[in-house]
Amino acid sequence: MYRPQIKVFDCTIRDGGLINNHFFEERFVKTVYKALSEAGVDYMEIGYRNSKNLFSSKEFGAWKFCEDELISKTIDGVESKTKISIMVDVGRVELDDIKPSCESPVDMIRVASYVKDIDKAIHMTNDFDKKGYETTINIMAISRDQGPELDEALHQIEKESRVQAVYIVDSFGALYQESVEWLVKKFKTILKTKEVGFHGHNNQQLAFGNTIEAIIHGVNYLDGTVYGIGRAAGNCTLELLIGFLKNPKFDIRPILDLISDEFIPLREKIEWGYIIPYAISGMMNEHPRAAMALRNSEEKENYREFYESLIDVELD
Amino acid sequence: MYRPQIKVFDCTIRDGGLINNHFFEERFVKTVYKALSEAGVDYMEIGYRNSKNLFSSKEFGAWKFCEDELISKTIDGVESKTKISIMVDVGRVELDDIKPSCESPVDMIRVASYVKDIDKAIHMTNDFDKKGYETTINIMAISRDQGPELDEALHQIEKESRVQAVYIVDSFGALYQESVEWLVKKFKTILKTKEVGFHGHNNQQLAFGNTIEAIIHGVNYLDGTVYGIGRAAGNCTLELLIGFLKNPKFDIRPILDLISDEFIPLREKIEWGYIIPYAISGMMNEHPRAAMALRNSEEKENYREFYESLIDVELD
Repeated sequence: MYRPQIKVFDCTIRDGGLINNHFFEERFVKTVYKALSEAGVDYMEIGYRNSKNLFSSKEFGAWKFCEDELISKTIDGVESKTKISIMVDVGRVELDDIKPSCESPVDMIRVASYVKDIDKAIHMTNDFDKKGYETTINIMAISRDQGPELDEALHQIEKESRVQAVYIVDSFGALYQESVEWLVKKFKTILKTKEVGFHGHNNQQLAFGNTIEAIIHGVNYLDGTVYGIGRAAGNCTLELLIGFLKNPKFDIRPILDLISDEFIPLREKIEWGYIIPYAISGMMNEHPRAAMALRNSEEKENYREFYESLIDVELD
Repeated sequence: MYRPQIKVFDCTIRDGGLINNHFFEERFVKTVYKALSEAGVDYMEIGYRNSKNLFSSKEFGAWKFCEDELISKTIDGVESKTKISIMVDVGRVELDDIKPSCESPVDMIRVASYVKDIDKAIHMTNDFDKKGYETTINIMAISRDQGPELDEALHQIEKESRVQAVYIVDSFGALYQESVEWLVKKFKTILKTKEVGFHGHNNQQLAFGNTIEAIIHGVNYLDGTVYGIGRAAGNCTLELLIGFLKNPKFDIRPILDLISDEFIPLREKIEWGYIIPYAISGMMNEHPRAAMALRNSEEKENYREFYESLIDVELD
């Protein structure tokens, strides 16, 4: 009953890093890697590769920079078939910082890009491809960008790039199943030679449901995170996704242990999940920035005022 | 863009009562009723009508019995178009306890029934119908009961009862979108003269997504609860549902206030929501009973052991 082409992609450390400025201990990251490996997860995205010229390594933890040496040290000694991925943002990485893949522990580089930056994203992935990496382009904030520029970007990716997959990224947690279906069909129609991926955010408790919707319509690259950790409302939970997929190569038990041992205590220290201001920003198709600021203020439970402030912006 | 036939049905006090033995203060219930009325919610299910011969009123709060006088007192003085519903379980109510509707503040009676008890449920709803109430039959635990007996029960309801809607109840939080679609299509094919309803549980974070799926395929009676309160993982959240529906009669703001003022503090005292043992029982299509017992024990975060105990049962 399962589709062998499906790849499960864990973004725990990468997306989770957005709520703690990427300050995860090496021990923690290794523990996650070990559990994912035992669970049979296909890829682990271990962080961002950002330029140290742009971000201070005092202000941000090591997983915002993901130097090859750090990755090698962290995964060393663990028996694993799980491939390592890093994410880069358009305009925030020095291409010369990326060594040939044969000299790096990294298997895949995913480029996060808005539709408007797609030329740059294609240029970057072609560079990484020549260096021997697997690549994807992840189209961010797609709920705000469904017009003709999206079609043009997809045609250009299909023609000019060698990425293996292109992701629909619901950055704002704003998509409902019908939009997911519409987007997947569009992607699959244009991208004849690429796989399609889906990365959901859980503002409206739809990250998992939308991922299932994407699977139904033929998406094979699926992102999740352990216990849903990730910016603001977080992501599709890896444990539910593995519970749903029928491929016998997956084992949910190492992920259950990881949640018991590490994520229940972690959730006491940092916040993510179903929280009303994030639900509101999802409904409004807004970046969670304002909601995150609210949650760091004394007004954190003033939902009505927050809702009304967004309505006012909408009508401006 | 909205479907005027859609009715939103709040079960906050009724389903929420399953986690505090129905001990809500009258002030709290009145506050919920006021907010639902201001929000334009169509129905409020205010509790169960259980026989006092079967359950002790010391052990259970007033909302397990929902006497007419209590309801009248609680809703008195609130301007409202929200109708009042009570739920009865097959075999747990004395029909003589139900007065004619003209003498009662109750507008609707919903009968919760397993497929095997459908004859009794039809008999009960026909009695309530004669007394002037609106009625529905809510078919519980449907994820375990999708065989030919279900078809037979639906044919019988269509032929022998005058209920206005029949509900698909995903008691175990086990359904995925494809099963929801399959069930809705079956219900709509057989129930030519009735509406179809959907009541989800959120074990796998799918209560809202499955409700949207039900809407897409023509379901018009939609259950939700404020902040998702309800047994174990809880229900489809009313705030997300109202945020999704486009009918201008709904106003989300009174619900947001209610969550800020009442449900954030309440959630500190009683537990519901996305909790791994409930997710596991949902995946396994099991009643949450065992998971609820685990959460009341010292082993509450021992997920692997719990998972393995269910696998063993499955293979027995």
